[in-house]
Amino acid sequence: LLNGSPPRLSRDLPRPARPAGEARVRMRLAGICDTDPQLARGYMGHEGVLGHEFVGDVLEADDASWVGRRVVGDINAGCGACPDCLERGGHHCPRRTVLGILGRNGALSEELVLPERCLRAVPDSVSDEQAVFAEPLAAALHVLDAHSAGPVTVLGDGKLGLLIALALRGAGVDVTLVGHHPEKLGLARAQGARAILERDIDPARDAGDVTVEATGSAAGLARALELCRPRGTLILKSTVAGETSPNLAPVVVNELTLVGSRCGRIEGALEVLQRGTVDPRPLISERFPLAEAERALARASEKGVLKVLVENG
Amino acid sequence: LLNGSPPRLSRDLPRPARPAGEARVRMRLAGICDTDPQLARGYMGHEGVLGHEFVGDVLEADDASWVGRRVVGDINAGCGACPDCLERGGHHCPRRTVLGILGRNGALSEELVLPERCLRAVPDSVSDEQAVFAEPLAAALHVLDAHSAGPVTVLGDGKLGLLIALALRGAGVDVTLVGHHPEKLGLARAQGARAILERDIDPARDAGDVTVEATGSAAGLARALELCRPRGTLILKSTVAGETSPNLAPVVVNELTLVGSRCGRIEGALEVLQRGTVDPRPLISERFPLAEAERALARASEKGVLKVLVENG
Repeated sequence: LLNGSPPRLSRDLPRPARPAGEARVRMRLAGICDTDPQLARGYMGHEGVLGHEFVGDVLEADDASWVGRRVVGDINAGCGACPDCLERGGHHCPRRTVLGILGRNGALSEELVLPERCLRAVPDSVSDEQAVFAEPLAAALHVLDAHSAGPVTVLGDGKLGLLIALALRGAGVDVTLVGHHPEKLGLARAQGARAILERDIDPARDAGDVTVEATGSAAGLARALELCRPRGTLILKSTVAGETSPNLAPVVVNELTLVGSRCGRIEGALEVLQRGTVDPRPLISERFPLAEAERALARASEKGVLKVLVENG
Repeated sequence: LLNGSPPRLSRDLPRPARPAGEARVRMRLAGICDTDPQLARGYMGHEGVLGHEFVGDVLEADDASWVGRRVVGDINAGCGACPDCLERGGHHCPRRTVLGILGRNGALSEELVLPERCLRAVPDSVSDEQAVFAEPLAAALHVLDAHSAGPVTVLGDGKLGLLIALALRGAGVDVTLVGHHPEKLGLARAQGARAILERDIDPARDAGDVTVEATGSAAGLARALELCRPRGTLILKSTVAGETSPNLAPVVVNELTLVGSRCGRIEGALEVLQRGTVDPRPLISERFPLAEAERALARASEKGVLKVLVENG
């Protein structure tokens, strides 16, 4: 799925080469993230196949014990040799490629290639429909690494905000999801999170010490700044490609701390899915066959639609 | 000095009333800050006399022991009763007024009024020319509260950036000041700080773990984001009134922490001035009599000018 071009699926492309140390994986199910339409419009300058949420089967690998296993993957493929890779997992390796985002073809394809060290085997008790959420759920759980204690307000009831609310709730955090869509807020409530309409919020009364920005819009960031108490923490989860941000004077005046938070530990997400403390499946809006991946991408951008999955039938 | 109006000095105004618990102070020397021209253009909606950097003599106070003492002041006049006032000094009191900034006439006047609890006596060994820097130096030293360890890069060689570099250097921090003006960088070098021209910086080589943004421009903020290593900390010191900010996607992608930092402890600044570990006097560009306060304000906005002082002769 190239910028403005027709979708590139593996039947249109040569079968991807498999470099040493990497595995070839047959995609079973892939998910579409809000970043994908942004990437399709040119964000990051990505020119390959999109898709970074997947579950699949290993077809080929240097380490034969991977072959035949059902896997998900850490999308950050670091160089494997720099201090960030050796000491911190490579999410900030300056030479990394990122599946479907940066210099590496993604999962909206019959097959994908990823370093074996990025693979994680999926336990049998975790279904494909759960496992395909491993990557976004790991990103949602990563909020816990930036949050020490106390109640959290999550702003944005899109798929990322919902997943963050469910992840925090599953971890026992006192969480309130704030959004515009009663039916989406209902999904959070069904799993025990507090959820309220944005129009019912009064910053003077409801501003908290920890807010998570997951709206994906510049207006949402401005609202999140209002919802942060002086000396509070605002965790930024959504990139807003291309747009400028609101004036940051309130960050200085109110001495806020803004913490950027991106990818998390895939194995942590698999553990949560296995324990069942978070069930992401109610977020699935629709499924498309791989041949209709471009329609799926368009559908995922429509208002009110949550997770769109693409299956390799 | 009102928005677009002629300067309001005390001879044009009724003598300010002195509410209970507040002191009347005769201004000796006042400093002009980069925020002042912004306030004059409408930032914060301030409609009174400008000026929040001063040293003066107490003329009247409820507590007679203040009368006749030479003082500087904490510019944040909290309500004195809320949790923020009782537990944290009131810098974030929701009902605060702020000298020359928010709901309280400032120091560019013959006399000013400030709660007695905001006053700090100036030691005899500290001159007026040093003491007038107590407020901005306290704000500069406050960077230390957001910084745990390691080298710091300060971006911006205006009066705030310079003062921050000197404050960090005086505290033993390994600091590099980055700016555009060789003569200003020279002032930092003269007190032991490393200082380099912005054009000699290569983010790939020079990005550090802790950066301080003190440029006062949206372009400076964008540059500061580049100069932060992944997982690094960016301390925001300057408000940029009215302007939007650059896209914050790098904050998320590189998982940066942005910390807003405003006012500091005035008594900490007086201690530093008394010990002499920081000498702010080389930053003084020019002095004007109070009758020429408006000219002083215009002069302070000119390129290359550092601290402009106004004296009540």
